[in-house]
This record gives sequence, C-alpha cells and structure tokens, in this order.
Amino acid sequence: MTGTQTRTAADTFDSAEHQAKLHELYRDFEAAGMTPLWLTREGLMPFHPQPRAVPHLWRWADLLPLAARSAELVPVGRGGERRAISLGNPGLPGDPYTTPTLWAAIQYLAPREDAPEHRHTQSAFRFVLEGEGVWTVVDGDPVAMRPGDLLLTPGWAFHGHQNVSDTPMAWLDGLDIPLVAETDQGFFEFGPDQVRNRSTPERSQAERLWGQPGLTPVALAGPRPASPLVAYRWAHTDAALTAQFELEAEGAPGVLGPGHAAIRYTNPTSGGDALTTMRTEFHRLRAGAASRPYRTSASSVWQVFNGDGTVQLGAGRNQLSRGDVIAVPAWTELAFTAATQLDLFTFSDAPVFEKLNLLRTELTT
Amino acid sequence: MTGTQTRTAADTFDSAEHQAKLHELYRDFEAAGMTPLWLTREGLMPFHPQPRAVPHLWRWADLLPLAARSAELVPVGRGGERRAISLGNPGLPGDPYTTPTLWAAIQYLAPREDAPEHRHTQSAFRFVLEGEGVWTVVDGDPVAMRPGDLLLTPGWAFHGHQNVSDTPMAWLDGLDIPLVAETDQGFFEFGPDQVRNRSTPERSQAERLWGQPGLTPVALAGPRPASPLVAYRWAHTDAALTAQFELEAEGAPGVLGPGHAAIRYTNPTSGGDALTTMRTEFHRLRAGAASRPYRTSASSVWQVFNGDGTVQLGAGRNQLSRGDVIAVPAWTELAFTAATQLDLFTFSDAPVFEKLNLLRTELTT
Amino acid sequence: MTGTQTRTAADTFDSAEHQAKLHELYRDFEAAGMTPLWLTREGLMPFHPQPRAVPHLWRWADLLPLAARSAELVPVGRGGERRAISLGNPGLPGDPYTTPTLWAAIQYLAPREDAPEHRHTQSAFRFVLEGEGVWTVVDGDPVAMRPGDLLLTPGWAFHGHQNVSDTPMAWLDGLDIPLVAETDQGFFEFGPDQVRNRSTPERSQAERLWGQPGLTPVALAGPRPASPLVAYRWAHTDAALTAQFELEAEGAPGVLGPGHAAIRYTNPTSGGDALTTMRTEFHRLRAGAASRPYRTSASSVWQVFNGDGTVQLGAGRNQLSRGDVIAVPAWTELAFTAATQLDLFTFSDAPVFEKLNLLRTELTT
Amino acid sequence: MTGTQTRTAADTFDSAEHQAKLHELYRDFEAAGMTPLWLTREGLMPFHPQPRAVPHLWRWADLLPLAARSAELVPVGRGGERRAISLGNPGLPGDPYTTPTLWAAIQYLAPREDAPEHRHTQSAFRFVLEGEGVWTVVDGDPVAMRPGDLLLTPGWAFHGHQNVSDTPMAWLDGLDIPLVAETDQGFFEFGPDQVRNRSTPERSQAERLWGQPGLTPVALAGPRPASPLVAYRWAHTDAALTAQFELEAEGAPGVLGPGHAAIRYTNPTSGGDALTTMRTEFHRLRAGAASRPYRTSASSVWQVFNGDGTVQLGAGRNQLSRGDVIAVPAWTELAFTAATQLDLFTFSDAPVFEKLNLLRTELTT
Repeated sequence: MTGTQTRTAADTFDSAEHQAKLHELYRDFEAAGMTPLWLTREGLMPFHPQPRAVPHLWRWADLLPLAARSAELVPVGRGGERRAISLGNPGLPGDPYTTPTLWAAIQYLAPREDAPEHRHTQSAFRFVLEGEGVWTVVDGDPVAMRPGDLLLTPGWAFHGHQNVSDTPMAWLDGLDIPLVAETDQGFFEFGPDQVRNRSTPERSQAERLWGQPGLTPVALAGPRPASPLVAYRWAHTDAALTAQFELEAEGAPGVLGPGHAAIRYTNPTSGGDALTTMRTEFHRLRAGAASRPYRTSASSVWQVFNGDGTVQLGAGRNQLSRGDVIAVPAWTELAFTAATQLDLFTFSDAPVFEKLNLLRTELTT
Repeated sequence: MTGTQTRTAADTFDSAEHQAKLHELYRDFEAAGMTPLWLTREGLMPFHPQPRAVPHLWRWADLLPLAARSAELVPVGRGGERRAISLGNPGLPGDPYTTPTLWAAIQYLAPREDAPEHRHTQSAFRFVLEGEGVWTVVDGDPVAMRPGDLLLTPGWAFHGHQNVSDTPMAWLDGLDIPLVAETDQGFFEFGPDQVRNRSTPERSQAERLWGQPGLTPVALAGPRPASPLVAYRWAHTDAALTAQFELEAEGAPGVLGPGHAAIRYTNPTSGGDALTTMRTEFHRLRAGAASRPYRTSASSVWQVFNGDGTVQLGAGRNQLSRGDVIAVPAWTELAFTAATQLDLFTFSDAPVFEKLNLLRTELTT
Repeated sequence: MTGTQTRTAADTFDSAEHQAKLHELYRDFEAAGMTPLWLTREGLMPFHPQPRAVPHLWRWADLLPLAARSAELVPVGRGGERRAISLGNPGLPGDPYTTPTLWAAIQYLAPREDAPEHRHTQSAFRFVLEGEGVWTVVDGDPVAMRPGDLLLTPGWAFHGHQNVSDTPMAWLDGLDIPLVAETDQGFFEFGPDQVRNRSTPERSQAERLWGQPGLTPVALAGPRPASPLVAYRWAHTDAALTAQFELEAEGAPGVLGPGHAAIRYTNPTSGGDALTTMRTEFHRLRAGAASRPYRTSASSVWQVFNGDGTVQLGAGRNQLSRGDVIAVPAWTELAFTAATQLDLFTFSDAPVFEKLNLLRTELTT
Repeated sequence: MTGTQTRTAADTFDSAEHQAKLHELYRDFEAAGMTPLWLTREGLMPFHPQPRAVPHLWRWADLLPLAARSAELVPVGRGGERRAISLGNPGLPGDPYTTPTLWAAIQYLAPREDAPEHRHTQSAFRFVLEGEGVWTVVDGDPVAMRPGDLLLTPGWAFHGHQNVSDTPMAWLDGLDIPLVAETDQGFFEFGPDQVRNRSTPERSQAERLWGQPGLTPVALAGPRPASPLVAYRWAHTDAALTAQFELEAEGAPGVLGPGHAAIRYTNPTSGGDALTTMRTEFHRLRAGAASRPYRTSASSVWQVFNGDGTVQLGAGRNQLSRGDVIAVPAWTELAFTAATQLDLFTFSDAPVFEKLNLLRTELTT
C-alpha cells in the first residue's frame, strides 16, 4: 500500500463511526498493555538520534564550593558511601544522569576522612583536577591520587578512599551508572568500613607490575576485560602529548589533527579501552588551534584540565575555564578552540556501541 | 569513618541549624543540576537488579483479535510504517517497552497488503506462530514466512513485507528498540513504498547461499556482525530438537537438561548470536519435564509455540497456552513445566551484557 | 657501506693472504657450528618463495591399482595403523610429503577390515571419491563415508575405521603431518584395536547435533578450535554449488568468478576453517569456464572429483581426469579450464599463514 | 582386524612368494612417488616430539672473537647484507638453523659501518648484550641500541643499521628464518644502500608515540599484527623484574615462581606477543633460586645477559656464563639454577603453536 493509497484509505476511514471504533480500539489496546507502533514510531525510531539529554556546561567555580559546603554538613559513611554529587543533565529531569549512559560527579573527601569499601558491577574512574593526599584502595592496593592522574576502578573491584592529609580533596568521578541502572545489570556489595590497606606508597602494586611500557608479567599474562594498570599518571600523559606535538613539528605522524594531540587510556592486556564500558581519553590543543567539528552517536563528558578556550556544542558556543565540565549528548556537533594551550580530559560510552556495531561518527565540516 | 562513627556524626549534626543549612545546600544543589549520591545510591546501585519492569503474561487469545480489529480501522503505510502493536510492560508506564531493552509486538498484515520498505539501526526479527502468505523482503531478497520460522532483519538492512494471499497473517516482532532509543543510537531511513522485489520464491537467496550446514561461499567468506542466513526454518529447528531428545535417549550429550532440548540461532560467519544485540533460541520440554529454575541479569521474552504447561515467573505461576507471550525482567526466577510437549521461542538481551562483561546467570535450586 | 664500496672492499680484500685467513675463519666457523648469513642469504631469504617442492600430478588410474595391490600383501593393524600410501613430492626426496606442510595419501580398506583406533595432534580429514561401506569412528561417533563427503578428524580426536561391506573402499586422506613433524609438535596415542562403536547409523551424532544450518545446541555453545560438525555431505556441497550457479544466472552474488562456484568447509562455532591448520574447499567450474590464474604463498593439493579439463600449474599444463591429484607448491601460478563441468576438492595450509600474518595471494592476469 | 589378527596375517603372509610381491609393490610405489605410512609412521608421528635438533650451548667467549675476525675479512654490503653468523644446531646438519623454526646469530658491525636497508616477511629482533653506538633504522625511524635493549623489526618493515661510533658492536639477532624458509613464506626486497635517516636520537619516534604505559595515540588506535613499540629498554625491563621481587617480598603476586621474576615483551595494540611468530621474554632468578623444570612443545633459544649458574637441558647440565647461548629443542626438560643473580633473555616459537592449538607445556617435577 503506497503513501498515496494510505492517504486515500485515511479519507475513506474518516467518518464518525470509524473514529468511534478507533477510539474503542485504542482504549482496548491500553487495557491490554498494548501500544501501536504507528502512533509512536517517530519518537521511538527517529531519523537520527534525538536525545532528550541536552548539551550542558557546569562551572568548576560553582561545583567546588557546593561540594565543600556538603563536607561541613554531611558525613561520608556506610550507607551513603560517598560524598559524590552528580551532574544531572537538565534534559533528563528526575534522573541524576549526565547523559543517558554516563554519570559524572564531583567527589569530595575532607581531611582525614575515609570512604568505606564496596564493590559494584558499575565501572568507575577518578580524574584528578587538583589536590592530593588521598589514596584510593583498589582490591587492597593503595593508589595515590594526584593532579592529572586517571585512576580506575574496574567493575566488581573492591575500593575505598582515604584522605591522609590535613586538606580536603575533590575530583571528578565517572561511572556507567545510568547504563547499568536502566538495563538492570547492577550488583553491589559492602566491604570493610575502613580501607583494608592504610599504607600510602608512592606507586601502587598495579603500577609496579604493569607500569613499564609493553612489558607484561609472565605469571599474569592473558587478556582481561579491564585494565590491570589501575593508575595512569599525569607525567606519562603529558609526555605523550608533548611528544605528539614534537613529532608533528618534525613532520611525523601522531597527532589527531593539526595542533591537536590526543591519547587514549588503554588496557595493556588487550589493547582496547581501559574500561569495558567507557572510553577515556586526554586531548590537548595548541594555543590558537581548533579541533575538527564532528558528531558521534556516543555521548560524552569533557572536563577542562587546564587552559582557556571555547567549545561549540551543537548550536551553542561557550567560554571554557579550568575545571569546567561539559555534557555532550549523542549526535551533537562538537568542536573546541584553544585560546591558550587547552588540556581536556574526556570519557564516553563509545566502547558499548562499538561492540554492538551501532557506533557512528562523522566530521561535520 | 566507620558506620558507627557515621551515626555519631549524624547525631552531632542533628540540630535545627544544621537542618536549615542542609536544606539550603540541597536547594542550591538542585539549582545547579546536582544530585547527591548519598540520597540516591540505593536506587541507583542496588545489591542486585531491581527492575521496574514486572513479570507479565499476554494471552494470544487477547492479542490476535485486537490486532485483527486494527486491520479494519488502520491502514499500513508510509509514516506509521507497520501495523505492529507492542506489548508494553506494566512496570514501565509511558514507554511501549516489553523490557528495558526489548520490544515485542504483534504485527498484522491484511490480505494483499504491503508494508513499505525502510531501514534502521535497530535489529529486528519476526517469529511466526501461525499463518502464511507473507514474504518479507530483506535488502531485496524475498523471504517466505511460515509457522515456526525465524526471519532476521539485521540492523540497517532495508526491509518491507507483502501479503500475497487472501488471508491475513500475524506474527511476533522482536526488536531492540528500547535499548537503541534510550541510548540514542537510532538512525532510520525510508525505502520504496512498495517492496522492491515482488517475487515469491520458496527459498530466499540468503538460504540458497548460506543454508547448507557448515558451507560458506568462498566469495563471501569473512565475519559479519549479524547472520547472513536470514531465515531459520521450522523444519530445521524441529529436527534439531528431535535429535537432541533421541541422543538423550541414547545416552549421548546434547540436551540442556533432562527432557529439555534447546537450540540457539547463530551467525554462521562467527558462531555467535544471529543478531548483534539479541539472543534468539528455541526450547522444547518433553511432556512432564521441567526446566531448572534460574535467574539471569539478561531480560527476555518468551512465546509458546505449541503445547501446554506452566511457568514459574518470580513468585508467580501461570498456565501457558499456545501463543502466550511472557516478559521476564532481569534477575527474575524462571522455570517451565510441561503438561504436553511444550515448545517455546525466546529472545533476550544477553549478547549485550556478555560483550560488556556484565552478564550474570545462576541456577536457583 | 654502499654496494659500490662493497665491491671496492672486495677488491682490496682479494689477496692470497686474505683468502687464506678467510679459509681459516670459515673452518673455525664450521667447528663452532656457525654459518655466515652472507653465504646463505639468497637461499634462506629469497625475493619470493622458491619452493623445493615441485608441481606434480598423480593419476587416479595409477594410484588405485597400487593401493589395491597393497591390500593383498599388507595387513592393516596395530603399529602400521593404516593402509595409507602418501603422495611424495618429487622435489622433496626422502620425505613422504606432498608439500612442505601437507600430506596427501590414498587409504584403502579391504572388505570387513578394521583400522585400529588412535589419536594424534595432527589434524586429518578424508575425502571420498568413490565407494562406500566404511564408517570412521571419531571419538566414539560412527560416521558413514560416501562419495563426495568430507569427514573430519580434528587434532587429538580418537578415530578408527571399519569396513562393514564386502567391497574394498579407497579415499583421499589429508593431514598436516609435514608441518607437525618438521616443527616437532607431534603427540600420538593408541586407542582400542577395534573401533569402539560398531554401529553403522545413517547420520552421525555430530550431524544430528550440528547439522541444521545456523542452529547450535545451547548446551554445547561456545567456540572450538575445530569444527564439531564432523561430516560434510555431498548432497549439501552439491546443492550449495548448484545454487551459486543459479544465483549467477539471476544476477545475484555468490560465485567466485564467472562460471566458478566455490564453497569453504567451515567451523560453525567460529565461522573459520573447519580444521585449525588446513583449509578445505570444493570448487566447480561450468563446462567451458576457466578460473582466474593466481598464485598464493599457501601450498595446496587438489583432487578432481568429477569431470574433465586442464590445469595450468606454473609453466606446465596438464589434462585432468576423475580422481587425479595435484600438488601445488607456494607461489605457483594456478588456473583450471573446464571441458565438461569440472568438480574439484582442495585443501591447503592457508589458515596457518593467515594466523601468522604471512599469507600473500595475487591474481596473475 | 585386531592386533592379534595382524600378527596371524603377518605369519600367513610370510612366504617367499609374498616377499617377492611385496618387493615389487614397494618398487612400484617408489616409481609412482608413493610412500606407505606403515613403513614411516613411527618417524612421522611419534608418541611425543622427537626433535632432530639437539640441546646445545655456545660460549660467548667463542662467538665474539670469531665474529670480530670476520669483520677484518668480510665487508658488510649489498648482497650479503649483514655480518651475521648463525648458530647452527648440530642436530640439523646442512641447515644453519638453531631450532627447526628459529635462527639465532651474532651480528657484528665495525666502527662507522652501515648495513644496507632491506625488508622481508621474516620477523626479526636484536637483543643487545654489550656495546653501543649503533642505530637500527626501522621504516625510517632510527632506534638506538644499548645493553639490555630489545629492538624489533616486524615482518616487512624496512631496516638497516649504522654504527656511528669508533668501536665495533655485536648483538644477538633472532629471526623466524627456518619457519619461513621451510614453509615457503619468504619475500624479500632491497632498500637503500645506506640507512635513509642518519640522525641518532636518544629515543625513537616509536618510543615517543608508544612508550608511555597504557597510552595509545588516538590517531593510531587499532590492533596491529606486531608491536609498534619498536624498542624495549633495559631500564624498563630491569625495573619490572626488580618490582616483581619486591612484590614477592611483600607477599603480593607477580613472580613466576619463588625467586623467579619474568616479563614478556608484548604488543600494546593487542596485548599479545611483540612479534607475530616469536615470543620474547626476560627472566631473572635470585642468587640461589631455581626455576621449576618443565618441557614444552615450543622450541626456544636463551642467552645469559648477566650472572652465573647452571642449566639442566634434557639429561645434561651445563655451567652458564655471561653471553652464553642455549638452543632448547621441543619437549626437552629445562631448568635453571642461579649461583649469582641470573638474568636470561629468551625467545621461542610458542605463539605459532598457540595460534594453531598445538602448544603443550608441562611441569616435569
């Protein structure tokens, strides 16, 4: 039946009697818990992603004081588990979700505080903008947290945090909470109320075992779903980005685009993403450079680690400063321009859709 | 800070002034689009999956007449695209979703009707309970639909349907619409208003190319994300299940459990699931047999193809008859008992969570 | 040091004293078990493969009577294990190898004879040109052998053969004996002197479990290194090739080239080759058609199952008749021309070099 | 036909007439290029690997002076290509092979010498015992060679060497020449007579791009057959081994056995072996420690990087000193005992047989 025939049929059907019968049918559908596709298809199956989530920017200047105030009023402890305040997308009211799959939060630990141990199927990481003095203990291995570091908590690894210093510390938490919650894949278990290993080594066991480039302990060889290298240190990230720019100047490959260096945090046992469900990367733009505008069906979150610039986020454009956090829904055009050298941490749900053969990405200029 | 200390701290904090400050903080959080984890963790991160979706059963005796009534009142055509009525889970009000990831519907095509061609990133299949006379045309290849057959529409394959007979035909549609919609991975494109190939061959090109067991055309060798064998015929399914029971009687392996035969529809280019995001299987219980109770973090939908029996679905138990459809949320105990030989078709989201290292399954007795 | 400098240096070095010292050095190298690369590089590291193996053709008219004579003179039994006579490449004297990696033999079983059970790490198959009455018992599963069938014995599967008929039977055996022998990967174990299961079913358990296209027993799901579908029947092979020609006539894809149909025997649990180390395929050329000349770094063996034609094999050209066997060394140009419809079975070592990233193939016209 | 029947049949057959016929048959077999399995099976298909290659040890004290003498007598240049002298296994006379698949050689470059560029499908590496001053240029990227470093030349990468110093330098070369030669997979191409990039940077481009642990350039992401990290530096290897011993002392996992640290050089894009066909590892035993005796179907070569000890190699036992090289055929029992701290580099063909599902390894005590 062609589109023309459809319209003809619709005319024919357009009688009061027909309308009454249709009304009755729809009422019966509802009673039976049935929904016609022809009334919902456009919303369910759009021509391209039409996220309810919206592009959004949070200012570090707003986030940090709010987190600090909570430390005066709310303890960290068993039950609440973490003094983490999530950044809820304004397009997803009611849900404390940053995008439909990702959960970003600022976590804050007061001087000498412990966050108790637990584990969950959700994958997690911490990215440190500033401060130090906290060790996160991952399956019994204490991991120092310092500015620019990425620290992993793969799914089902026990973890707690302790602040051994006399200053508070805040950082960005990233988890796949919305994905796991909405698909009912969450399991959770309490561990000890205090972290099981209170030592504060410079380097974690994970780094000592896995931290030499390309070297794998023979005793531990074999693929794992998430990276056993729990800490990715700023010195390494910075060196890798610096090298890409130097190589660009020498005419050698390495950068993602002109003036645009980028590394991905990967799992040395597989070469894939460091975490199973989230891609984590760090991007650097030279002062004056711009990234190529693109859009992807993955959603992402970005945080400015350092520098100033602007972001084009769909139709909008925003000034960026240190610590600002951006939510980028699926299929939203994205480009950055650097006023000074601009350093950006980002995470996304791309690995999920790569594995499901759903991911699409295209340059928009 | 231990649980005990937490309670002490809470006492200390328990003053009118503290409450006022807390109230103010929460108001400021809300204004900033921030949500404290300590107020939401239990809902977001349960000890085990706590689906909003509920176990539910739809009677074929209800579904078919309602679908038939819609054929008299609503045309199939461009825009609405399909006369498909989805089975909405009562626990997911507002969303026409059968589970949080799966969409099951009854589709109905009147005599001589066409459903226009389109394509979408959503994966789809049809499972035929009864009737014939419809050819689904997948990327130009007309595929006959007959009782017991499973017909695939992998993501982004053009497809339309035509009924060349003088009788209506209804079948079960399965798609990953909720997963794709909630994660913003949907792309959609219209094709011709009428199916591009109106021939009605007994066997599709796909079956002629890929339908001999273990034989691959050399010209087409190599892995594909979804099965190129678009049609899985009832005669093969029935023969495979029959053979499992015969082997069981001979003391040879093959059955899933005593009196319980089961086959999975697979992709001959990879050995994996026929579709990227959905597992499709057919189970058969001997009269008097029972399946082992289990629960899994995958959600699923089951349809009785033939026979009578009962289903234990969480705490509930239901009689089953031919054509009945069941929604099984994550982590819901499930077991079947067969009064007569009981034939069951099922699909689930298990491949998604297998790929993400999230799937959990356990026997419950 | 450039080529020019090298020659200059050689001149300088070209004195009697130098020659004497060099002679002494080479003698000392030899005593130390050392060999200079500069004297051996051209042979060790040629510009392209320079096989010692040569193209060769064996006539079925010669092979079969010789095998039959051996049945009158040599028993089959424990120790010798098989009445199999291998086709030794004339370019590989001393080694009973058909190519450097492949071993092809004619195996012959007299009426009512048993070949005792054993197992080995070598992968094996039987391809049947003519005759019937033998069951090969693979890990206790009796598998009928009939013309056009391919029967697998994956590495380390116990297997024996029994002829239950009053006529002798001969077939082509293919193994990776040279590869395994030259790399010291062989393990071998005796089983029972007589096959453990003397039943003679029409269909093996393997076929009953795995023989429906695209259907996998749920209880046995998961990848395996070799195909669990032990028998690939002629009726299926013939139907698949016939369908490719019909599709070619309809303008649909499927054939490997004009008038050239080809199927690969594959492992349904992975989509890869049926055996770990050997690729097995069946090719059919229409009367009058020719395959495209090509060469590949894989070596292969071909047997004419039916029909007449010619083969271009490097610089040579041969008439082909039913049963003739051809050895094709690496990088030897190969093309077939069909006088009548020409049916060809073939096996090669291509999977080995695909896995090692070494395989190269190119069309030569 | 059972074993008993076989013997009976043999008696029956044991007549002069029978012997004459058999003699005639075997003559006809030979004329036809056919070899009976029953006469060759024991050699072709042994109960376990029976290598022709033998365990062997070469003294560095012998190798180095011989290599030095060759530098006075033989130029390096186009044609001969390399001043590399291979260590030929005494059990493999005629072939300059260290094991049936592996080729180990000492390569020697005089002051200011160049080895011209070429490329080949063979995979190669250099391991440096002592000396410096040479840069190997891999696909245009100059890579410094220093003691303890492993430098890769993946298959088909152009490479040449230049000595920019006034001292000679020698190192261990490892290649899969025998495997590639015996299976006819060799392709070879000349490059420039002098290395194309004469710069002598401290760090290669490869290290600058890939040398930060777990960090991948986004622009270069994706799996590759061999490691893009062309240089594995001694400082990293030493640190990784030191860490394993420290962790052992702390009771944490990491070592391969008591007092036995070991790392594998891996490909960061896949987590697999650094080279496609060869496994490369470095082992360290504490003074007084011993490795667990084992045997494997892989063959291997070991070089003492530092320290003293003994090796048990099959039935034999040898003293080990710095630089000594050992050939270990398949299925030969192997164990080391350390007098001082004992540092060992090793390479093997294990990845080949892992990929082919043939590798077997077992502890022998």
